[in-house]
Amino acid sequence: MKTTLLAASLATLLGCALACGPALAQGGQYRNTDNKNLLDAAEGTYPVPYKMPQVAEVTAQLKLIRGYMDGATPTRIISKKTGDQIFDLKTPNADAIFEPSAGDYGIQVYEMGVVHSGLLKAAEATGDASFTAMTQRHFNFFAQTLPYFRAQEQKFHLERANSFSRFLDPRSLDDSGSMCAALIRARLKKIGPDLQPMIDACSDWVANKQFRLEDGTMARKRPQEVSLWADDMYMSIPALAEMGRLTGNRKHFDDAVNNVMGMTSRMFNPQLGVYTHGWHANHPNAPRFYWARANGWAVLAMSDLLDVLPKDHPGYEKVLNQLRASIKGIAELQSGTGLWHQMIDRNDSYLETSASAIFTYVIAHAVNQGWVSPTTYGSIAQAGWAGLSTRITAKGEVEGTCVGTTLAGDMVYYYNRPTSVHALHGYGPMLLAGAEIIKLVKNPAFEVQHKVRTYHYMPKGGKTDYREHH
Amino acid sequence: MKTTLLAASLATLLGCALACGPALAQGGQYRNTDNKNLLDAAEGTYPVPYKMPQVAEVTAQLKLIRGYMDGATPTRIISKKTGDQIFDLKTPNADAIFEPSAGDYGIQVYEMGVVHSGLLKAAEATGDASFTAMTQRHFNFFAQTLPYFRAQEQKFHLERANSFSRFLDPRSLDDSGSMCAALIRARLKKIGPDLQPMIDACSDWVANKQFRLEDGTMARKRPQEVSLWADDMYMSIPALAEMGRLTGNRKHFDDAVNNVMGMTSRMFNPQLGVYTHGWHANHPNAPRFYWARANGWAVLAMSDLLDVLPKDHPGYEKVLNQLRASIKGIAELQSGTGLWHQMIDRNDSYLETSASAIFTYVIAHAVNQGWVSPTTYGSIAQAGWAGLSTRITAKGEVEGTCVGTTLAGDMVYYYNRPTSVHALHGYGPMLLAGAEIIKLVKNPAFEVQHKVRTYHYMPKGGKTDYREHH
Amino acid sequence: MKTTLLAASLATLLGCALACGPALAQGGQYRNTDNKNLLDAAEGTYPVPYKMPQVAEVTAQLKLIRGYMDGATPTRIISKKTGDQIFDLKTPNADAIFEPSAGDYGIQVYEMGVVHSGLLKAAEATGDASFTAMTQRHFNFFAQTLPYFRAQEQKFHLERANSFSRFLDPRSLDDSGSMCAALIRARLKKIGPDLQPMIDACSDWVANKQFRLEDGTMARKRPQEVSLWADDMYMSIPALAEMGRLTGNRKHFDDAVNNVMGMTSRMFNPQLGVYTHGWHANHPNAPRFYWARANGWAVLAMSDLLDVLPKDHPGYEKVLNQLRASIKGIAELQSGTGLWHQMIDRNDSYLETSASAIFTYVIAHAVNQGWVSPTTYGSIAQAGWAGLSTRITAKGEVEGTCVGTTLAGDMVYYYNRPTSVHALHGYGPMLLAGAEIIKLVKNPAFEVQHKVRTYHYMPKGGKTDYREHH
Repeated sequence: MKTTLLAASLATLLGCALACGPALAQGGQYRNTDNKNLLDAAEGTYPVPYKMPQVAEVTAQLKLIRGYMDGATPTRIISKKTGDQIFDLKTPNADAIFEPSAGDYGIQVYEMGVVHSGLLKAAEATGDASFTAMTQRHFNFFAQTLPYFRAQEQKFHLERANSFSRFLDPRSLDDSGSMCAALIRARLKKIGPDLQPMIDACSDWVANKQFRLEDGTMARKRPQEVSLWADDMYMSIPALAEMGRLTGNRKHFDDAVNNVMGMTSRMFNPQLGVYTHGWHANHPNAPRFYWARANGWAVLAMSDLLDVLPKDHPGYEKVLNQLRASIKGIAELQSGTGLWHQMIDRNDSYLETSASAIFTYVIAHAVNQGWVSPTTYGSIAQAGWAGLSTRITAKGEVEGTCVGTTLAGDMVYYYNRPTSVHALHGYGPMLLAGAEIIKLVKNPAFEVQHKVRTYHYMPKGGKTDYREHH
Repeated sequence: MKTTLLAASLATLLGCALACGPALAQGGQYRNTDNKNLLDAAEGTYPVPYKMPQVAEVTAQLKLIRGYMDGATPTRIISKKTGDQIFDLKTPNADAIFEPSAGDYGIQVYEMGVVHSGLLKAAEATGDASFTAMTQRHFNFFAQTLPYFRAQEQKFHLERANSFSRFLDPRSLDDSGSMCAALIRARLKKIGPDLQPMIDACSDWVANKQFRLEDGTMARKRPQEVSLWADDMYMSIPALAEMGRLTGNRKHFDDAVNNVMGMTSRMFNPQLGVYTHGWHANHPNAPRFYWARANGWAVLAMSDLLDVLPKDHPGYEKVLNQLRASIKGIAELQSGTGLWHQMIDRNDSYLETSASAIFTYVIAHAVNQGWVSPTTYGSIAQAGWAGLSTRITAKGEVEGTCVGTTLAGDMVYYYNRPTSVHALHGYGPMLLAGAEIIKLVKNPAFEVQHKVRTYHYMPKGGKTDYREHH
Repeated sequence: MKTTLLAASLATLLGCALACGPALAQGGQYRNTDNKNLLDAAEGTYPVPYKMPQVAEVTAQLKLIRGYMDGATPTRIISKKTGDQIFDLKTPNADAIFEPSAGDYGIQVYEMGVVHSGLLKAAEATGDASFTAMTQRHFNFFAQTLPYFRAQEQKFHLERANSFSRFLDPRSLDDSGSMCAALIRARLKKIGPDLQPMIDACSDWVANKQFRLEDGTMARKRPQEVSLWADDMYMSIPALAEMGRLTGNRKHFDDAVNNVMGMTSRMFNPQLGVYTHGWHANHPNAPRFYWARANGWAVLAMSDLLDVLPKDHPGYEKVLNQLRASIKGIAELQSGTGLWHQMIDRNDSYLETSASAIFTYVIAHAVNQGWVSPTTYGSIAQAGWAGLSTRITAKGEVEGTCVGTTLAGDMVYYYNRPTSVHALHGYGPMLLAGAEIIKLVKNPAFEVQHKVRTYHYMPKGGKTDYREHH
């Protein structure tokens, strides 16, 4: 009650504060530690730690997240009824389930596929193979328990209630694509056991069974009879790309490129440079909702595809140009904290972690791969990390991530989606972002100058001249 | 003084709070009551009652407003000097005036025309004829007192001070158009007495006497020598449309369509999908001010026209396409509360009730009429009502409505127009919106699914598939 | 610590307050004093003094600023080591420097060039020659001390540490262009001593020595190897224009026009009507940062050029059209306080004084010169002054000005630049704005009507009609 009154009086004052002249400088609790002149009056303060990222510090943050994830994702079978661990993997038991984590972090959900991909990147960026220990543990558990849950299914027909249902009976891209890409990546890096049966199951769904438009674009039968989700770019394209890499069959690359184009032609706004969340065949010219995370999935999908797409593929330039156009649009909407807003074009919606992490990863990665210029994009990625670093708790949780969100039709829904440290969507992207920032900082292809209180990413060998400075 | 200090320190903190990373989820005091799972962590809270509108509840809210309006609009003649009621309608008295209401709700102002139109729609939507009792009372009063005030005018020449001046001596579209449309609508529904003399007076002004551009577009001699006001779309087009319906003379339809086009060509921004408030012949390429309510009048005018324009009229498709373009632009600017901002493209201006109510009505009506798809637009209209429902007080007042606003040339004016429960502009639109939401909820042409915590309006017979869901 | 907690809880409440329905009218501490009806419920309150500017009041504000500047800019030579004044101007002393002001207001920096230009305009607008007394004092000091510092340089080679280095050894447009324009303006008005040697030095740099693109556009070797700064439009174009006026050599006009076009083609966004802060040859299609003050420098440069460019110059119409396009874009982004935001297109960045002052000056000046219509632009300029007037302290300081800001590559930097009364960038523009507002108010070419609670600037002789009003 008191809170309500205070909120009401704040709202009144706020109405004024927002629109009134008085609001002067902003700033925050951080001073840039790269500026050693403590008396420099032209050095402001920041709401985020605006400074050159330090490899050791970023590595420590990544380890913190990895440690939290590791601790929060048990790989045991328990009885749904009693909670007791089940050791007998010979006798199917209708109550046997994967032990749920306190945070509800499913070990076979699509978000966990991103976590594994992030761990692989972190191992690569840091040279510390312990990052993939959790991937090994999870994947070994899958290898050990797949026969058990297959037998459970044959006997009890639990369908969605079977803990292994995503690979015994995949029904959607959410079930299959992201983990599929992660499984293939781990396999090609020789991490974990042979999981070819799982790879086959999810590959088959993505390549052959998913509902599509006539032109091959991945579609869903919800929330309308024929809907596209920008999210499905990530739920299908990286898997197709990795299938192409694993099998050498170029039809998967063709399919991946075709999906970039089919999704883009219907959902990308070239004026703003961002994707609307979805599209309905029964209402193709609908009002658009630029949900940030869907844009994240779109650019992450294109980035993952370019990582493995042969440069001589006829779609390479098209995908690269579309990724560049998207990165430019996204970069122009970055907030003054380095993070991005839940609705990417609406600065009165909250600052959302998972999308911000994906954007930071993709922009840094595009710079490191030479797909976009380090000039400007280097500093934008760095600013993204400055914002993200405030979202990692001392326990290694990632906070500020929008929970699972459906394709909706009104702004009240989108603006008010809750955030939670239990939203797994933030963890994989944060690992990806930190790993790529480490590579950015170490990248010998360009030089980072801290000059006049900010950061300038310059192609190596570029000559500047500050001798005019007083 | 204390307030000022507090405001100042808030402004400082605010500067940070707004731009800083910390801001996490938003939410509010309402939980969606359609989600029966109270433990669902993915169900957030909302600043407005986000839920399927219930017919009984909306009807009760409409009755509350009707009751307040009814009580607040006396129909008596009093002496301006003594305040005493005047019963003698034979002897003209220079002091005789309509008894003013406490809230200054004029019974012949254009805003009251919208109230009557709203009451007619509410009666139609609810089947409850008592909604039009107030219309009958007002109109009977007009019939009884018109001769008296005509005699007063002949004797005393009071001009604008004559309470009946709008119909004795109309001088503007504000004087005539909106009430004219309402009078004709009531007449065609056989509600109230024969007011043909009033209809004649206002029709004559709208059709023949209003200042216009050479191409027939309705204009004003203020604030510049030749100005257009987007508001005048509503102040003329519905009256012309109803005149066409009443008389069968198609020239009125032609005039109405011509005005849609003449106003649109000068004031509509096709890129944003919204109208600037006005246009001056002496400065045609001026900076634009996207005042929300003017956009409301524009779309309400087109919607009212399409309600009666014969489908074979050569302008029908043009008006329909223009309404669709406007609805799309407006829908894309809806806020995270379901309401719209005073300056429709500025999310730091306040959330304004009257415009939000008109938009909610027009979008819901366009869905119900089949002019736009229920997909997306159904949920946008529903979200609009969620916001509007918070603006009705326990007494039936409508709050948050911008008071009367002229065509101005700076943002300081527009941002700081006060809001008041005494701004009659909010009442008619709120009645219209509620009535149309009832029709939306009952509309058998589509199905509303509450799935994954939000609402999906689907064309009847559409098949969705959620069997993939875990 | 307490503050942090309060900030955190505010942030939470704020999240709601911002996005929630409750926010009703805004308003502020000022009531429009031009509305004498204190009971007028339709007259709101404002966060800034929304009223017709009064010449006496504006003049007093200008004098306050002039007085503060005068007192804050000593013209003495002191010993850097002891702080003692040096009277011996015969013997070069390595420690001799211009006495710094408490506020670090350099007497030869580019910002001071704007102050002198502002003082000249203030003298002209008010007819009060005392406004230029400070200009005389500074310029006399330059004449007296130039030989001394030249000798100091020959003997000690202090380079940037020589107080007179900008004219002994100019190295940049910042060193030369703005003061150059001011020196020529004063010379042509016969204010101060003969400073032809200084004019020669700075003219030579601007015309002949500055690094340029091949097409003649002024460039810098920082922060990238080849960068353009929109700021450099002001740092070069007014100097070139004044050199053309002083010497009669049209090549300087050609150069000025060529720079308007060269800068505009690379940095102007015609869709938004504003300039991005900079451009890099190594990344021409980079994300854009619409920093307000850079837009100020751009339009001030064009305005200054048009002041002296012969109307028969082939570039006149091009420059005029570009100024008009820019003014329109800027005007459409004015905030509800009359001020503009630090990032001109971002309403969650702070309201910045120096840019707002430049915009107010340029718009008012363009109206006064007949370059744009008084209709709409007159009221926009007036609203700008309403906001600016709240930024002048009782001591004559100008507050809310962003400190010196480099061409950067991320929003975290731009949003969090501190503001300071010691940022000299605000003072000259404020003098210019106030002076031009006085001219606007006195301008006989149009009439200002205060009608229906706002202001209407009308071309003289325009006829309006309010007889319809009730």
